[in-house]
Amino acid sequence: MDLIAEKLSQAATLVAASDLDVWLTFVRETAEGGDPALPFLIEGGMTWQSAFLVFRSGRRIAIVGNYDADPLFASGHWDEVVPYVQGIREPLLTVLSKETAGTNQSAPSEGAYRVGVNYSTDDVKADGLSHGMHLLLAEYLEGHPYELVSAAEVVGSLRALKTPTEIQRIEKAIEETEAIFGALPAQGLIGRSEREAYDLIQGWIDQRGFGYGWDKAGNPIVNSGPDSMIGHGVPSSEIRIGPGHIFHIDLGIVVEGYSSDIQRCWYVPKPGETELPRDVESAFAAVYGAISAGAAAMKPGVEGWQVDEAARSYLVGQGYEEYLHAFGHQVGRMAHDGGTVLAPRWERYGRTPFGKLRENEVYTLELGVTPPGRGYLGIEEIVVVTAAGIRWLSDRQESMQLLD
Amino acid sequence: MDLIAEKLSQAATLVAASDLDVWLTFVRETAEGGDPALPFLIEGGMTWQSAFLVFRSGRRIAIVGNYDADPLFASGHWDEVVPYVQGIREPLLTVLSKETAGTNQSAPSEGAYRVGVNYSTDDVKADGLSHGMHLLLAEYLEGHPYELVSAAEVVGSLRALKTPTEIQRIEKAIEETEAIFGALPAQGLIGRSEREAYDLIQGWIDQRGFGYGWDKAGNPIVNSGPDSMIGHGVPSSEIRIGPGHIFHIDLGIVVEGYSSDIQRCWYVPKPGETELPRDVESAFAAVYGAISAGAAAMKPGVEGWQVDEAARSYLVGQGYEEYLHAFGHQVGRMAHDGGTVLAPRWERYGRTPFGKLRENEVYTLELGVTPPGRGYLGIEEIVVVTAAGIRWLSDRQESMQLLD
Repeated sequence: MDLIAEKLSQAATLVAASDLDVWLTFVRETAEGGDPALPFLIEGGMTWQSAFLVFRSGRRIAIVGNYDADPLFASGHWDEVVPYVQGIREPLLTVLSKETAGTNQSAPSEGAYRVGVNYSTDDVKADGLSHGMHLLLAEYLEGHPYELVSAAEVVGSLRALKTPTEIQRIEKAIEETEAIFGALPAQGLIGRSEREAYDLIQGWIDQRGFGYGWDKAGNPIVNSGPDSMIGHGVPSSEIRIGPGHIFHIDLGIVVEGYSSDIQRCWYVPKPGETELPRDVESAFAAVYGAISAGAAAMKPGVEGWQVDEAARSYLVGQGYEEYLHAFGHQVGRMAHDGGTVLAPRWERYGRTPFGKLRENEVYTLELGVTPPGRGYLGIEEIVVVTAAGIRWLSDRQESMQLLD
Repeated sequence: MDLIAEKLSQAATLVAASDLDVWLTFVRETAEGGDPALPFLIEGGMTWQSAFLVFRSGRRIAIVGNYDADPLFASGHWDEVVPYVQGIREPLLTVLSKETAGTNQSAPSEGAYRVGVNYSTDDVKADGLSHGMHLLLAEYLEGHPYELVSAAEVVGSLRALKTPTEIQRIEKAIEETEAIFGALPAQGLIGRSEREAYDLIQGWIDQRGFGYGWDKAGNPIVNSGPDSMIGHGVPSSEIRIGPGHIFHIDLGIVVEGYSSDIQRCWYVPKPGETELPRDVESAFAAVYGAISAGAAAMKPGVEGWQVDEAARSYLVGQGYEEYLHAFGHQVGRMAHDGGTVLAPRWERYGRTPFGKLRENEVYTLELGVTPPGRGYLGIEEIVVVTAAGIRWLSDRQESMQLLD
C-alpha cells in the first residue's frame, strides 16, 4: 500500500470517529501555496477548483477540472473522480446530496449535514482553506442543508498520528542528517566563515537531491561564537569559526517527503586547550539535563505545556536563562508539522500547548543557552511518543566534541 | 534598487491610490504554503505570526517574532521592525493606533479604519490569508476601530503590473526555455518514450538550477500521438514518439524567481514524408491564426473574455472544436499568476474574465486542436500589454518543423 492509500484509509477511520458527515478539502491553483493537507490526498497539484471528499461511509470522491481528472483516476485512490468543465458547484451539490442521502449522520445541527473544512485558528497545518475559498464554498452551499465547520480534529490527527511508513521516512531523514553532521568535523572548518559552512552543507544536500525542512535561505542555521546572529537568519560571511567558539548547526532535510530537524554543537579549542572549558561543560550539562527532564515528562495524555515546563524549570533551576521559544514541535513533511506544541502557554501559541500527547506523534526536543563569550549552545533531538513514554529517533548528542 | 524595494515602493503607491488605510499581510509558518504575496515583501519565510503593514502614508512596518526580526531589519526594506516574544496582538494594535492616529484616511465606514487583507473569491494570488488567520485577526481587532476588507485590488495590481525588472526576468526565463526547445530536435527522440523526453528536459532544468513554473511532477507536459493523455498528467513510459505523431511539449521554468510557460509542437514524418501532411498544416494554420486573432484584440481597457472570444470564434470559424480552457492567463513568479484571465465567462473562472487589460500585464496566449490520429497540436506564446496593444515576449512558433 502506498503512502497516500495508507493516509486515506486512516482519514476514513478518523472521519467515521468524528462528528463530521464529510471531510472536504477544497483547493485551486495549488502550485504556489496549496493546502498542507493536499500531499496526503494526491501527488502533484491541481489547477482549477477541486474538492476532495471523504464521507463517513468511507467513500472517497474527488471533483476536479477536466484536465486534472485522468491522472487522479489512474492513481486508484478515489472511488469516484468526477470531472467538470464549466463549474464545480453543480457536481459538488450532486455528490453531497447523493452521498449523504439516507445516511445516519451524527448530530446534524438544525437538520444540516456537517461538512468539515480545513480551518483552524491554532493549527497552521489544519488551516489550508483560504478565506476567499471559504466565502466561495459558503456561497455554493447556501440554501442547501450543509453547515461548514472546522475539520481541524480530523486533519490535525491525520497529520499528527504517524503511520509506520511515515516514522520510517522520518528516521531515514534523521539518518542522512546525522551522516552530514558526522562528516563535518573532517572538513577543516576552522578559519572559514559561517557562510562557507552553510554553502558546504547545502552543496551536499543538493547533490543528493534532498529537500529542505524549512526555507532554504535559512537552512542550515550556522552560528559560531558570541557575535553570531541567533535565530532564523542567513549565516554571516564575516564571522569566522575560531578558537573559543561554540559552533552550532540547526539542520532539517527532507528525504522521500519527510523531514528531520536536528541541532548539534561543537567547541573550538583555544591554543593549548585539550578539553572542554568548565563553563561550556556546565552549559552542555544543563541543556542535556533539561532535554532529559522534558523527555521524562512525555507520555500519552500529558499536555504539551507540561513537557515544556519540565524542561524549562530544570534549566532555570540550573541557573540559566529560560529560552524564548517552545521546547518542541511536531515533525512531518516539513520540520514544523503543526498540532500540539511543547510550548509555554503564551498567546502566540494559541491553544496548541493544551493538546494531549498521543502515541505515534513525533516531536523535536530543543533548547539552548548562551555561555558568555562563547556563542549559542543549542541541542535538538527527535522522539516518537510510545504507549510507555518515548523512543529516541535521533542518536542523542551525549557530549560536546572538540572541533579542531 | 532590489526587486523587493521596487515592489514595496509600488505597493505604497497602490495603497495611497486605494480606499484602504493600510494593507496588512498576515502570515505564520510559511515554509509549507505561505501567502503568494509574501515574496514581494520578504526573502525567505517566517515562523510565528507576522504582520507586514503598508500605510497610506507610505510607512512600512513589520511585526514579527523575536527570532525573525534581525534579518528582516537588516534587509533595509522596512521603516520599522517590531519584534515580539509572547504575542502579536498588543504590538499590532499599538502600531495600528499610532500610524492611523490623525491621518486623513479615505472613507472610513462608521468611523472604522479600512484594513485591507489578502482575500478574494476570484483571484487565487490575492487570496493568501487562511480562514483561520482571518478569524484570529478579527478576534484581535474586535472592539477597536478597524474593519477588515479585501485588499484584492492592491495585491492583484501589485502582482499584475510588472516592473521593468520583472519583465526582464520573465524574458530571461523565456530565453532559457527557448534554448531547451532549440536543443530538443538533435536529441534523437524518435522511438523514445514521452517519459524519456520528460526526464531529459528535467535533467537539463535541474542541472542548471532552474525551478519549475508548476508542480515538477507534471512539468514538462509531453504528448506524442493520438493515444497520449491530454491535460495535466505525468508523461507515459509506454507511448513512444513515432511516425505520424504530433510531438507536443508544455514547459514552464523559473529563472531568478520568474517563470515562463510555452508550448511547442513538431511533426514526426512517416517514411517517405518530406513535408507536413495537409491536415496537420491546416490545423497549425488554424491554431496560429486563432492566437493572432486573440493577440490583435488585446489592448488596455479590453476585458479578458473579449480576447478569449476573438481567438475562440476564429478557431470555431475554421471548423475546429473549441478548446475547454482559457485562452490565456497571467505569468509571473509562477506560470499562473492570478488576476484577470483571458477566459470565457464560465463559472469556474468567477469574475476573472471581466478584468480589464492594463499596460505591463504579461499573458500567455494558448490553445490547441487534435487532428484525428495525430495527437495534440497546441501552441502557447507570451506577450506583454503595451499602450498600443502587445509586444511578443516569446519568439512565435511560425511553422511546424519536422522531427526526424
